[in-house]
Amino acid sequence: MIKITFPDKNVREYPEGTSSLEIAKSISEGLARNVIAAKVNGEVWDATRPIRSDSSLQLLTWDDKESKSTLWHSSAHLMAEALEFFYPGIKFGIGPPVENGFYYDVDLGGQAISSEDFKKIEDKMLELARQANKYIRKDVSKKEAIEYFTAKGDEYKLDLLNDLQDGTITFYQQGNFVDLCRGPHIPDTGIIKAAKLMNIAGAYWRGDEKNKQLTRIYGITFPKKSQLDEYLTMLEEAKKRDHRKIGKEMEIFTFDDDVGPGLPLWMPNGAVIIEQLEKLAKKTEQEAGYQRVRTPHIAKESMYLTSGHLPYYADSMFPPMEMDGEKYYLKAMNCPHHHKIFKELNPSYRDLPIRLAEYGTCYRYEQSGELFGLMRVRCLQMNDAHIYCTREQFAQEFNAVNEMYLKYFKIFNIDKYVMRFSTHEPSKLGKKYVDNPELWKQTEDMVRQVLIDSKIPYIEVPDEGAFYGPKIDVQVWSAIGREFTLATNQVDFAVPARFGLTYKNNQNQLETPICIHRAPLGTHERFIGFLIEHFAGNFPIWLSPRQVSILPISDKYNEYAKKVLQLLGNSDIRGLLDQRDEKIGKKIRDAEMKKVPYMLIVGEKEFNDNTVSVRKHGGGDLGTFTLSDFSKMIQDEIDNILNVK
Amino acid sequence: MIKITFPDKNVREYPEGTSSLEIAKSISEGLARNVIAAKVNGEVWDATRPIRSDSSLQLLTWDDKESKSTLWHSSAHLMAEALEFFYPGIKFGIGPPVENGFYYDVDLGGQAISSEDFKKIEDKMLELARQANKYIRKDVSKKEAIEYFTAKGDEYKLDLLNDLQDGTITFYQQGNFVDLCRGPHIPDTGIIKAAKLMNIAGAYWRGDEKNKQLTRIYGITFPKKSQLDEYLTMLEEAKKRDHRKIGKEMEIFTFDDDVGPGLPLWMPNGAVIIEQLEKLAKKTEQEAGYQRVRTPHIAKESMYLTSGHLPYYADSMFPPMEMDGEKYYLKAMNCPHHHKIFKELNPSYRDLPIRLAEYGTCYRYEQSGELFGLMRVRCLQMNDAHIYCTREQFAQEFNAVNEMYLKYFKIFNIDKYVMRFSTHEPSKLGKKYVDNPELWKQTEDMVRQVLIDSKIPYIEVPDEGAFYGPKIDVQVWSAIGREFTLATNQVDFAVPARFGLTYKNNQNQLETPICIHRAPLGTHERFIGFLIEHFAGNFPIWLSPRQVSILPISDKYNEYAKKVLQLLGNSDIRGLLDQRDEKIGKKIRDAEMKKVPYMLIVGEKEFNDNTVSVRKHGGGDLGTFTLSDFSKMIQDEIDNILNVK
Repeated sequence: MIKITFPDKNVREYPEGTSSLEIAKSISEGLARNVIAAKVNGEVWDATRPIRSDSSLQLLTWDDKESKSTLWHSSAHLMAEALEFFYPGIKFGIGPPVENGFYYDVDLGGQAISSEDFKKIEDKMLELARQANKYIRKDVSKKEAIEYFTAKGDEYKLDLLNDLQDGTITFYQQGNFVDLCRGPHIPDTGIIKAAKLMNIAGAYWRGDEKNKQLTRIYGITFPKKSQLDEYLTMLEEAKKRDHRKIGKEMEIFTFDDDVGPGLPLWMPNGAVIIEQLEKLAKKTEQEAGYQRVRTPHIAKESMYLTSGHLPYYADSMFPPMEMDGEKYYLKAMNCPHHHKIFKELNPSYRDLPIRLAEYGTCYRYEQSGELFGLMRVRCLQMNDAHIYCTREQFAQEFNAVNEMYLKYFKIFNIDKYVMRFSTHEPSKLGKKYVDNPELWKQTEDMVRQVLIDSKIPYIEVPDEGAFYGPKIDVQVWSAIGREFTLATNQVDFAVPARFGLTYKNNQNQLETPICIHRAPLGTHERFIGFLIEHFAGNFPIWLSPRQVSILPISDKYNEYAKKVLQLLGNSDIRGLLDQRDEKIGKKIRDAEMKKVPYMLIVGEKEFNDNTVSVRKHGGGDLGTFTLSDFSKMIQDEIDNILNVK
Repeated sequence: MIKITFPDKNVREYPEGTSSLEIAKSISEGLARNVIAAKVNGEVWDATRPIRSDSSLQLLTWDDKESKSTLWHSSAHLMAEALEFFYPGIKFGIGPPVENGFYYDVDLGGQAISSEDFKKIEDKMLELARQANKYIRKDVSKKEAIEYFTAKGDEYKLDLLNDLQDGTITFYQQGNFVDLCRGPHIPDTGIIKAAKLMNIAGAYWRGDEKNKQLTRIYGITFPKKSQLDEYLTMLEEAKKRDHRKIGKEMEIFTFDDDVGPGLPLWMPNGAVIIEQLEKLAKKTEQEAGYQRVRTPHIAKESMYLTSGHLPYYADSMFPPMEMDGEKYYLKAMNCPHHHKIFKELNPSYRDLPIRLAEYGTCYRYEQSGELFGLMRVRCLQMNDAHIYCTREQFAQEFNAVNEMYLKYFKIFNIDKYVMRFSTHEPSKLGKKYVDNPELWKQTEDMVRQVLIDSKIPYIEVPDEGAFYGPKIDVQVWSAIGREFTLATNQVDFAVPARFGLTYKNNQNQLETPICIHRAPLGTHERFIGFLIEHFAGNFPIWLSPRQVSILPISDKYNEYAKKVLQLLGNSDIRGLLDQRDEKIGKKIRDAEMKKVPYMLIVGEKEFNDNTVSVRKHGGGDLGTFTLSDFSKMIQDEIDNILNVK
């Protein structure tokens, strides 16, 4: 018998050689139907693979990230089987899962494929899926493997085999298709209920342009038909809401060749959004007892040698500037600068916790090919802060950070979110993780307890903590269901000591504080990119670059319109005046296009009565208002959004 | 007869060979008594030097910068005469005027001098001054000059003579002292009424440490005794108000070796001041129709080649970072980034003027030896904006900028200021100045007219304009009378064309806008440095990092004190709670030391009555207030300062 330990620490006994799927069945048939793969001792396995010794086990269903990869990896094999049916003699390169779906690089040997062929391949995949063919794992010797692919005539697989050690090679077979593969895979093809080929591209074998160009075919599959429909709808909506497209139309940001890739220039409309976000963050942080600081964007090499970012993180930093015989680096993070200020404050326990906040702009190097709109940039304006506290204060401080997240989620209408809580792996202490088992346990327990107590949805991910402590990645979903990594919280009980940070405790002795790194609004770049998609550019009134468009019916009312603009400005309402010599219908259409929340139409009647006629964006006519009533309505709308409980 | 043109364009005739001093006497004896030197055809001359051809003439009195230099240069000669009296055989290096006073580098040949000798030297200087010895200019041949200093045995003057061309050499003599000197000098020593030696330092001959070290003696003189007294009082006060000292005591900023020299870290108290200044600037600029933008701190080399900053300005920029085969530079100015945004806005004449504002942080290289506290730094957070307008709009826009300065001067209690209006020199068009005589004349005339109309004190400085247009340097004086260069406004009619900036005029044709560079609050670094001295750290209530210190009489009232702190916080009042177990007298003394504007004392009576006892910093007891009355008083005080008309 072997002992199986479940995530809730329960232990059950099973005969040696029982598979995860059989264990799932022993618990419930319903559960077993949803099992896609399993995590055995922290490693993802085929759910059908026999377990031969005492192990920890986590059954993976569709909601687990790893099971998606497994399903999509298996789907690449399924697509390959379908391709082989239509294109005999086809040769296969590599076929991995990706963020959304999978691809396979293939050599069609002169045969042609186009998106018109997608339908028949999808149908074939579904036909094969309905056969519920098992994915069968088989250990093979290198000799056998070479013989097989030599006979098949697939030079790419033979090339891959070159790099593999005898004794580590496995084949996977489902139906008529055999592949050289490390796995893991789903139990059988029957789990795949929907398939869609997405795209064809060229790709050099092994990414080297001296090699032959293969055909890369992208696809995606789901265990439910409805999931594919939702995904396609989401994609279509995401295209309409593309932050690059809306960002240009609304004049939010731009890029310029002379400035450089990944370095957005924020135009006046974008700067309004930034200013509003900062105002919210500063107010929220002030109420939560944060103090603001300002630090330079550069520091000497010695700073980053102390922090440990150099040399390990050098590839993600900008190259140095050499000056006065010293190397200076653009900062890729604000923490070292904040640590220096903490040190200068030379606090006693009475002064703790000290919470230092800064919208610090950091610079990180990303390969130019990886840059993407506001989502992947080189310049990051970060809603950063570092909280220095005692161990006793830690849980309360950490909880307060989470409360702040929840408040922001409400303000920004973010309904779906999850915190990925990454912990350490005890066997890697002193290597991947700083060797302080007691503090790891203590802080992980505290973080877990805070998450449980505050009822925030979270998942625990072993062995993904930071070097210096457990961390939390905050994942949020936009209104159309796309997932974004918004921010990271990190617990840091190692770096403060490297910087010699101390406080005087109530025994007059020096102690090292714990540091919490937190950035609930992430960076302006990524967050505004997210918000553009989330709101499809229809920003809530408080964030909207222009809140009101004033539309005089004719030139005759331009002066009155100007007065309206001025008076609204005095009430801090951001207005825009359309003085063009255009028909009112055209002016309204253009204001709707620009997504301005309110349109104020002024003509003879409004001028005589000292009023405005109000239209809401996408919402039609609201009737006639005095300016003070209108201002009050706007202010109430803003208060209603921002004063969440 | 020769024609003399005065600054007011009046022309008078005088016999050839008349001196400036004689001309002054012809106008008024009183004026003549105040003449220290003269500017003849833009060049500073001895007032006693005969004018031999038609010339423009500006008589210089103590209030003109150049006359101070002249007086102090002459005083260096006077000190030299006194030194020669006490130290026979003394040899002289160079003796120039400096920002405040003058120095002479001397070789005492084994004789000793210390600050104890200052008094006798000063007395001797004043004795010689009372003799009213004339400064007599004499042309000498190189041979004569060499003979004179060979006979005198002064190898330093002989070394200087090496570099001079025969026919260009002049001596000046006053009393018994003869010096190799280009001049100009004051008419006679009688003008010097007060003298003070300040300091002794070592200085290598010609600044080369391979040469002999000479003794540098610093001094200062004035045409009135009272001016010296004022100067010494100011110096003493400046020492007390040293921004580096107060900045440290009040925890406003700090420097750190790992960050680098000239790169201040702004601690929480400093960040409060920065935030308040930015709030004021943003509000003021919003009301004045500015739009905010945000731009990265770096750009590619190509940007600065277009702007013309590279290669000419390269020494003042940080060295480049080489990345992806490109050079990136930290920005030393925000204009190129703003130009790019203007271009992207692609405006029509209806959209102009466009005013783009950013508190942009720039980086400029300064020699490490030249760095000085916040006054000379490498990191500059600049109250920057660029106004793009038509020629027709220029005067109004320029005037609005000046109005903004005047508003700020009132808010910050700056009573003394002057605008130095620098113009071009027509003979240098196409060399030092962009070759557009018409636009030079037009913009200079407009700037001058705006200055005259707005009655702002200004002086006009020929031949100091920027390459691309006239500029204005704003000089202000702190409360103790020290002069600071606060900011620069520049008119730019050249660079917009280099960037291809255009707007569509009402004929649907493309035109190039004029650009005004302006930064009324200068940089946070320099301006806060100035404010610390100006207010001696006693910031006005709206700027004060901590506005209120709450002092519980004993532990028993800590809870009530916390409530008070919380309630004040809700009214946006920045409080500090002194919970230490100290006597109330000590708490009051410490709060006074920390320059907190108000102290709120809470004890039994206050707790029972729900009130606070208020003390004003340096102002004693104000009596008992309810919290709402106190908050209102503070708010009124702030409104009173900020809502200037």
